[in-house]
Amino acid sequence: MLADAPLPGEIHRPARLMEAMRYAALGSGKRLRPFLVVEAARLFGVEGPGVLRAACAIEMLHCYSLAHDDLPAMDDDDLRRGRPTLHRAFDEATAILAGDALLTYAFDVLADPATHADPAARAELCLGLARAAGPGGMAGGQALDLAAEVAGRPLPQMAIERLQAMKTGAVLRFSAEAGAIAAGASREDRAALAAYGRALGAAFQIADDILDAEGDDATLGKRTGKDAGRNKATLVAALGLVGAKRLVGKFVDQAESALAPFGARANILVAAARFTGSRNH
Amino acid sequence: MLADAPLPGEIHRPARLMEAMRYAALGSGKRLRPFLVVEAARLFGVEGPGVLRAACAIEMLHCYSLAHDDLPAMDDDDLRRGRPTLHRAFDEATAILAGDALLTYAFDVLADPATHADPAARAELCLGLARAAGPGGMAGGQALDLAAEVAGRPLPQMAIERLQAMKTGAVLRFSAEAGAIAAGASREDRAALAAYGRALGAAFQIADDILDAEGDDATLGKRTGKDAGRNKATLVAALGLVGAKRLVGKFVDQAESALAPFGARANILVAAARFTGSRNH
Repeated sequence: MLADAPLPGEIHRPARLMEAMRYAALGSGKRLRPFLVVEAARLFGVEGPGVLRAACAIEMLHCYSLAHDDLPAMDDDDLRRGRPTLHRAFDEATAILAGDALLTYAFDVLADPATHADPAARAELCLGLARAAGPGGMAGGQALDLAAEVAGRPLPQMAIERLQAMKTGAVLRFSAEAGAIAAGASREDRAALAAYGRALGAAFQIADDILDAEGDDATLGKRTGKDAGRNKATLVAALGLVGAKRLVGKFVDQAESALAPFGARANILVAAARFTGSRNH
Repeated sequence: MLADAPLPGEIHRPARLMEAMRYAALGSGKRLRPFLVVEAARLFGVEGPGVLRAACAIEMLHCYSLAHDDLPAMDDDDLRRGRPTLHRAFDEATAILAGDALLTYAFDVLADPATHADPAARAELCLGLARAAGPGGMAGGQALDLAAEVAGRPLPQMAIERLQAMKTGAVLRFSAEAGAIAAGASREDRAALAAYGRALGAAFQIADDILDAEGDDATLGKRTGKDAGRNKATLVAALGLVGAKRLVGKFVDQAESALAPFGARANILVAAARFTGSRNH
């Protein structure tokens, strides 16, 4: 999909920009979001290139957000997934642009007829991704996160939960829902997958904060212990490690309950939620 | 559309981020792109809130691109439309995020059923905007522009024309086409509007470069004479002022010819192309 071939007319895709987009998107990574898309669609018996395209679009969006979050003006990180961050491997202008291009290209992929034969599904995928990633979702959560860091005061638990539901939860929730949309699932089934994704997202973020507090750089491929140093708003700071771990368990249970109507067919998604709550990398 | 009201559940839109998005999008400006959307739709007898939403989405996308282009790592501009640029008025992190959020929100608006009753039109609007703004369009053009600046060698005329067709031409072309899509115009009519928008876009960018070479800061509300100082790839540098002005005339004629089938109904769009070629601000 990211070929550097000339497009019709005078349009082509510059090689260095494409290289930076690939560097940001095709390194290692858990691929949790595309996994959720693919497995949610499979729950309804649907798989194939269209679902994979939707999955790739969401991963591209996720990778854009990492590239921009790592920028010097944002979290100023040098290491990501065990490699130099995008702006360290290329330069800051290229990192900004490649992030912009990945974000834009995600919508190109979703809106393309190759992703779904039904234009209503394509429009719903675009709308869902835009809502999950925009000012009421991921971008808004990142803004709240930066503001909390600048203020330097600890946030109350509810404010942190909201921030995390926006910053990481919204796209994880949409990933599960996107699989259901791609599979043409009913409104009710879509809502179940969204509830699952939302609970998994909450568990994931708290587990991430626990890892930051407990983990070591070599296992994670990024700097750890940095949240505390920066007054990052985390539930570990608000609840302590024991309280945070208990909350993870609560969200994992919620994720499992949301999929109860699907019985054993949902085993892999349930296992993913359990793994998310207990992961060590 | 950009209200700071809480969304359902725990999601809301952070006030400072929204303020930055408004600052970037609601200052003064020519509003050429929304004008093209609205007038292109009107050519087919269609107007109303849906068309205005599509027009606003494209303007939001345009304003995101200005905010990111102005960043210190990119063109490093302090002044835009007679005011401090977004990162000067707020801060760099907010400018990056507000740009990201405007870009994302543009797709939210286009994919929303309030913009068009037909999901196929919404999906086409999303696809068209993503293609015009992505690595094969605006973002790719900006990457080529930065590369040319770094290389410090003058580009040949053809390379400059391609760069400009991507960087500013693609979105201007799509603006005219978007109006035709929103109006449900035929493939043939859409192609005519796209050809018009493309020629207008080419004329617009060369006129902009001529203004930079000839204009003064007070009339334009931004620094002028900066292209030459930075080895910016412009057709003024490649062809001289006389040659560049002749080329503008050629593109204005092309824009006019593309709309010949519509006769006098297209007068306002033809006048816009002529104005674009002769503007002094």
